[in-house]
Amino acid sequence: MPTVQPLPPPRRPSIKAGFMTVTPDNVPGDPRFFVTQGPFGLEQLAQCSGAELRKAADGTETSTPFTGIAPLQSATRGQVSFLDNRRYLPLLEGTGAGAVIVAPAFADKVPPHAAVLVSKAPYQAWARIASLFYPPPPVRPGIHPSAVIGTGCEIDPTAAIGAFTVVGDGVRIGAGADIGSHVSIGGGVEIGARCRIGAHAALSHALLGERVTLLPGARIGQDGFGFAVTPEGFESVPQLGRVILEDGVEIGANSTVDRGSIRDTVIGAGSRLDNLVQIGHNARLGRCCIVVSQAGISGSTELGDFVTVAAQAGLIGHIKIGARARIGAQCGVMSDVEAGADVIGSPAMPFREFFRNVAFLRRMARKTTQDGGREKAEKA
Amino acid sequence: MPTVQPLPPPRRPSIKAGFMTVTPDNVPGDPRFFVTQGPFGLEQLAQCSGAELRKAADGTETSTPFTGIAPLQSATRGQVSFLDNRRYLPLLEGTGAGAVIVAPAFADKVPPHAAVLVSKAPYQAWARIASLFYPPPPVRPGIHPSAVIGTGCEIDPTAAIGAFTVVGDGVRIGAGADIGSHVSIGGGVEIGARCRIGAHAALSHALLGERVTLLPGARIGQDGFGFAVTPEGFESVPQLGRVILEDGVEIGANSTVDRGSIRDTVIGAGSRLDNLVQIGHNARLGRCCIVVSQAGISGSTELGDFVTVAAQAGLIGHIKIGARARIGAQCGVMSDVEAGADVIGSPAMPFREFFRNVAFLRRMARKTTQDGGREKAEKA
Amino acid sequence: MPTVQPLPPPRRPSIKAGFMTVTPDNVPGDPRFFVTQGPFGLEQLAQCSGAELRKAADGTETSTPFTGIAPLQSATRGQVSFLDNRRYLPLLEGTGAGAVIVAPAFADKVPPHAAVLVSKAPYQAWARIASLFYPPPPVRPGIHPSAVIGTGCEIDPTAAIGAFTVVGDGVRIGAGADIGSHVSIGGGVEIGARCRIGAHAALSHALLGERVTLLPGARIGQDGFGFAVTPEGFESVPQLGRVILEDGVEIGANSTVDRGSIRDTVIGAGSRLDNLVQIGHNARLGRCCIVVSQAGISGSTELGDFVTVAAQAGLIGHIKIGARARIGAQCGVMSDVEAGADVIGSPAMPFREFFRNVAFLRRMARKTTQDGGREKAEKA
Repeated sequence: MPTVQPLPPPRRPSIKAGFMTVTPDNVPGDPRFFVTQGPFGLEQLAQCSGAELRKAADGTETSTPFTGIAPLQSATRGQVSFLDNRRYLPLLEGTGAGAVIVAPAFADKVPPHAAVLVSKAPYQAWARIASLFYPPPPVRPGIHPSAVIGTGCEIDPTAAIGAFTVVGDGVRIGAGADIGSHVSIGGGVEIGARCRIGAHAALSHALLGERVTLLPGARIGQDGFGFAVTPEGFESVPQLGRVILEDGVEIGANSTVDRGSIRDTVIGAGSRLDNLVQIGHNARLGRCCIVVSQAGISGSTELGDFVTVAAQAGLIGHIKIGARARIGAQCGVMSDVEAGADVIGSPAMPFREFFRNVAFLRRMARKTTQDGGREKAEKA
Repeated sequence: MPTVQPLPPPRRPSIKAGFMTVTPDNVPGDPRFFVTQGPFGLEQLAQCSGAELRKAADGTETSTPFTGIAPLQSATRGQVSFLDNRRYLPLLEGTGAGAVIVAPAFADKVPPHAAVLVSKAPYQAWARIASLFYPPPPVRPGIHPSAVIGTGCEIDPTAAIGAFTVVGDGVRIGAGADIGSHVSIGGGVEIGARCRIGAHAALSHALLGERVTLLPGARIGQDGFGFAVTPEGFESVPQLGRVILEDGVEIGANSTVDRGSIRDTVIGAGSRLDNLVQIGHNARLGRCCIVVSQAGISGSTELGDFVTVAAQAGLIGHIKIGARARIGAQCGVMSDVEAGADVIGSPAMPFREFFRNVAFLRRMARKTTQDGGREKAEKA
Repeated sequence: MPTVQPLPPPRRPSIKAGFMTVTPDNVPGDPRFFVTQGPFGLEQLAQCSGAELRKAADGTETSTPFTGIAPLQSATRGQVSFLDNRRYLPLLEGTGAGAVIVAPAFADKVPPHAAVLVSKAPYQAWARIASLFYPPPPVRPGIHPSAVIGTGCEIDPTAAIGAFTVVGDGVRIGAGADIGSHVSIGGGVEIGARCRIGAHAALSHALLGERVTLLPGARIGQDGFGFAVTPEGFESVPQLGRVILEDGVEIGANSTVDRGSIRDTVIGAGSRLDNLVQIGHNARLGRCCIVVSQAGISGSTELGDFVTVAAQAGLIGHIKIGARARIGAQCGVMSDVEAGADVIGSPAMPFREFFRNVAFLRRMARKTTQDGGREKAEKA
């Protein structure tokens, strides 16, 4: 039977994937996929990351050049590791890493053989050191011969355009922009310098600032969900706005941002949207908002700056979320949220109230059921 | 560091996007993206929309030709605006629009300088006037030379097929159909007259009526999620049905409609699905259903006509939802719903019961906590 | 008005779709879309499915060759049908099928004219008989002339690569693999034998075992959602892991699997993900896990073998789910779940507790409201 899936082989300690046996986690920065730079000395790592360098407690020479990074549990002397999450503290003591990035509070937990890179922002320091070893691949300027380019376009000669990409009339693409394969760019779209547009992305009616990133399959600027309900069915309302993605915005894979109906849909500078996120027409996100996977923001709703919307949360339309508010996972927001508030639940309520309700309900339901059970037992 | 995102610049009052400074909302119908028709006189607008025309209360000449539309807050004398949502009533008084579409109840709230277009269906009237000024772009008949067309296809000469689109063997495409770029159409698929298929859509095992719209990235007709669970793992069950999208159906960006396993998956005429919606195999939607973003309908579930499923709601398989029922946002429906019912919550319950439960729980949890706090205070 | 949707025509008993009038359910295995094999005799069907054959109770000749399959309600004498769900028992009595696959408990409910194929795993038997009549289409080896193939690739001559597919440098593709159209395969990716990659899929930084299936629009291996929060905004953390999809994994349409940041994201052998599922970076799924549509698993979370995650459930990051645990639909999992546990609700709790809470709350809220109403009435 062609569709039968025979018993899969046992998985660990190694699996056969493709043509070779791979061991998960044998290496970050697999050379098939990443280009490595280095080696680098400790001084360079400290300088690049802004961390304070403390030599190994046992006097181990720190002149060893470092060749890469690794998680605490697998790192060796030539590798740098880091601790950001207190949950992994037990791994720190046993690490074989030659150097570890840590927050000041954990500096004395690093084993004596390892150098310490102390940083008040260890995750940021980690990001910088990782980028030093594994820089993003360079953009290869040029237009793939299979791409279809419209008339009247302005494409910077330092930009790259991938195979089978379609660029509509009058499109402008800035310096160093990296457009992947199979991208569809509608007429009149503007894409600023150093944007990265992933494979299969579709853009129309959109203006992108600089350094905007779209992951594969993102849909930007299509018709919003707007129609008049009539006794005879539905009648489409023309969607006449645009999408504006300000500088540094990132949009995840297969996420969708509808263009406005009569004003613009705007994603504020620096905001990051995860995969499978939905943004309705006319929505406004402030600067540096975070919208986690599978969350949805309905039409005309406005978010202030630095708002976080956790995974699978949903916001109805026409409401306002104040700056720095945090919307919990799976939260259902049906009305305005004040600046700085933390809400969760469906309908949304303050974190404290939500967990109080949960605890109360559990306690009462248990008690009542037990009482009921006792009564029944007594009657019997 | 190449991945560093420096501090984004302040956003408003204007932002630099792409190559130029844009002001959000400076115009609906940006000429880069939309073609404008007109100007039109008031009589034409009234006739097109079916609205009743009342001249400006202060006797302002209504012979001015109108050049476009705008929101209440930014419209000027040569533009038409509208009020549909009572929430925006304060904006009506201050509007500079030369004419406003309103429901009869709000006709006397229109400022005296503006003509009034009174309609019992103002949103529909608005849709028609907006379409008059900004008609959808015309279909440009013809097959892009890069498209790959199978054998035995019947493609109407008035249809358009975009770049890099793949059309399988025996496909039929009707008059005036507009197929975008990068579309994948499997063998035997039928697409009726005046359908619009967005970029990157994939269709297989599907029959589409007339005027069906698919937004970019919609997936129609792939294998349903069907397999037998055996002690050795999972065994695929062949999915032998089709997808039928009846006349006037619209499917949002990146939504997925699986084909049936042994019968058809059917979306009834006029129904509209938003972005990121999932429809399982064998599901049946009646006529003019609405399924809002990120909602999911599991396999073999049936919806009557005019059912609304709000955002992020989920329906389990093998249940029936009666005509005109309304399923609230994030609702989890585990059993049949009667025609005309309004349900919400997870598990689903009547709206009234849901909000009664929410209010009761909040009150009781607060009271108990306060009592507990008082008791503790008294003991201390 | 071009965007007007006139009243859709009445739907049933038949609809006009595309160019012809179709009746939903007139046939599984529409010859436009499926190739049929056969006819087959009862002995062959019994052998292929492992079912025990019992001749028709009324002595009807079972030598009739069977030409296909059909649901109970529409099957005729030359067709095989099956009963798997007790819900459809009433349909069994009235079926016109010539043979029916059933579990032993229902064998005596089959009408006397029909042969009985008795199986302890009737759905699996059904899968095998359906595959016998309607085998999956054969792979047509060869690389479409429009495909763009990188340097240093190893592509098995029995593999198929569709139109407009882009294959990066150093990619390896195994025997009998079937790569659809418009697929984007990043450099270094490995795809094992007999994989099926649907149209528009995008893969990068990924190693696939054998018999892996990706449905259209799946996104595998893009950047995870990782960044450091700084006072000045967000700073990307390089994502240096891979995605490993072990043997027999299936990923649904438009689902997204991010590559790991410092270790690998791994989907265990035989696991099946439905449409629109999100898997965060570094997540680990054991063997034969099921993740239903629109569910999401956050970064670094680990699932044991045979875990089921129902539709729209969400798991936070950095937790562990024990083997054979079942996570209910729309469940919000915020902490570890023990092996074999059944949880539901948001936050997650045992099934029994969840439904006890629901019942308690309903009862109490009703009672209190009624008491309150009575008190008010008495006061009046």
